[in-house]
Amino acid sequence: MSQVFDLLILGSNSAKPAYDRHPTAQLLNVQHRLYLVDCGEGTQMRLAENGVKSSKIDAIFISHLHGDHFLGLLPLLDSFNLMGRQHPLHLIGPPDLIKIIDLHKEVCKARFLYPIHFIPIKDTENAGRVYEDEMISVDTIPMDHRVPCTGFLFREQPKERNILKAKIEEYQIPFQQIKAIKKGADFECESGEIIPNAELTLAPKPRRAYAYCSDTAYFEAIIPQIQAVDLLYHESTYLEDMTHLAAERGHATAKEAARIAFKAQAKKLLIGHFSSRYADLSGFEKEARDVFPNSFLALEGKTFNINNS
Amino acid sequence: MSQVFDLLILGSNSAKPAYDRHPTAQLLNVQHRLYLVDCGEGTQMRLAENGVKSSKIDAIFISHLHGDHFLGLLPLLDSFNLMGRQHPLHLIGPPDLIKIIDLHKEVCKARFLYPIHFIPIKDTENAGRVYEDEMISVDTIPMDHRVPCTGFLFREQPKERNILKAKIEEYQIPFQQIKAIKKGADFECESGEIIPNAELTLAPKPRRAYAYCSDTAYFEAIIPQIQAVDLLYHESTYLEDMTHLAAERGHATAKEAARIAFKAQAKKLLIGHFSSRYADLSGFEKEARDVFPNSFLALEGKTFNINNS
Repeated sequence: MSQVFDLLILGSNSAKPAYDRHPTAQLLNVQHRLYLVDCGEGTQMRLAENGVKSSKIDAIFISHLHGDHFLGLLPLLDSFNLMGRQHPLHLIGPPDLIKIIDLHKEVCKARFLYPIHFIPIKDTENAGRVYEDEMISVDTIPMDHRVPCTGFLFREQPKERNILKAKIEEYQIPFQQIKAIKKGADFECESGEIIPNAELTLAPKPRRAYAYCSDTAYFEAIIPQIQAVDLLYHESTYLEDMTHLAAERGHATAKEAARIAFKAQAKKLLIGHFSSRYADLSGFEKEARDVFPNSFLALEGKTFNINNS
Repeated sequence: MSQVFDLLILGSNSAKPAYDRHPTAQLLNVQHRLYLVDCGEGTQMRLAENGVKSSKIDAIFISHLHGDHFLGLLPLLDSFNLMGRQHPLHLIGPPDLIKIIDLHKEVCKARFLYPIHFIPIKDTENAGRVYEDEMISVDTIPMDHRVPCTGFLFREQPKERNILKAKIEEYQIPFQQIKAIKKGADFECESGEIIPNAELTLAPKPRRAYAYCSDTAYFEAIIPQIQAVDLLYHESTYLEDMTHLAAERGHATAKEAARIAFKAQAKKLLIGHFSSRYADLSGFEKEARDVFPNSFLALEGKTFNINNS
């Protein structure tokens, strides 16, 4: 049975809300650990609408300081307080984010009752690993935008090898040694015979990975890092006829997003961050699929699952 | 025919959004001039849902710096920019509000393309008149809350007297003198006879007034200022069984709001700022009407009109 690795889209519009589409926010659920990626205005309402218990969020990742990616953060932090949250929150984002939180605490005469562990992303081009827990590691992906901005590569932690039950019986492997074998050790029988690990175990399921790339212009430098990723979200603010404007504003088109997915041999592409000038989004799907057939619109309320069963 | 004086409720929940109710925001429309009163998270979405062209807002009034009353402001200011707003915005609120805007501009590397005329409310107990234009004057109402907080009294500007057409003909009043007579002057006939203004004109329609009182504990000191107001919005975060908690937190109950309305002889009462602990709001209406029958729930999307026809 596959273990949960789900991405819920909470908002996928660009700066200006329109057509009941909201600014950027996504929720990654890895084995019921919840990670929020960007937090545009109204994110806490979108979480509630989707039945998510927002207090369960362990870490929040903010890509950059444009309002549509972070102005839902303070309301959410306030609500955590009102809900009586006490367990720590990990917050990963641009260094100035803490200034905003500090000023909020100062002017509102508020204090948060839960610890916020803030991890500033200083050198966006070389920030590397910014977060790690038992479930995942998170590395930054340098973006090409108008202000310092990083994407995020979420990857499952290495898994243990699967030990074969028949081999446990055959070699009468004691319980205490199973942990080491799962990690790759060989087994020495009482006779002194060495049974190589490869005979005792099967390779673990591959580590799933999700790459979040927003906001960015078309930027081939990211391709090696996101190579063969299971799921790629790449911003596509405009359609092809606006390619010039997209580049000027540090954004990408649907075709450009698809070209990145194609060159990186991603398994699946989600596109979003749609400009409010588009009421109808079907052009995005069409233009992306022309280049990379396994492309989908990151529509609000949709969940995308990476299955590894 | 009455001239427009409408209050549209955009949000009337207290701090935590719940049951699809949103934090505080209201839109006052006086003869198609638009004034926004408080601006909780998501206000720009509520404006759009209600078909309001938000770029037309002339002035925004912020009562105090608790997140549920102002965290929708920066997203709205950003959107004004994206919509190409150029005409000035008047912003009235606590002095620290400008720190928040300045930090936002600094960290987002943004500049607003339209002027923001900021009027800080310094001494909340004696701030007096904070805004005036051709349509309305706005005075602060000192509130009793945990942080500095003011309500706002919106009042129509004095109107001209209504000159009687029959008298214009009877006394052959020249066009040039009509303006002065509308302002209260007597008329001197060619014969030298003085016709008193009272014979030539009817009193103007009374100046309508709307008092916004949130957030506040039960606070009788405000009664003289809001005496006989046409429409009173008074916060009522809790029901009567929570009177003690309300006072402790600087909030009021529905009964207390109604008591203020009764003592001030207000013509109509709206109650709002409902705690998220209440799914069903019918108790609020009931408790308020026990004391002041002309009480109504400030439900989102509802428009309350002050008619003077």
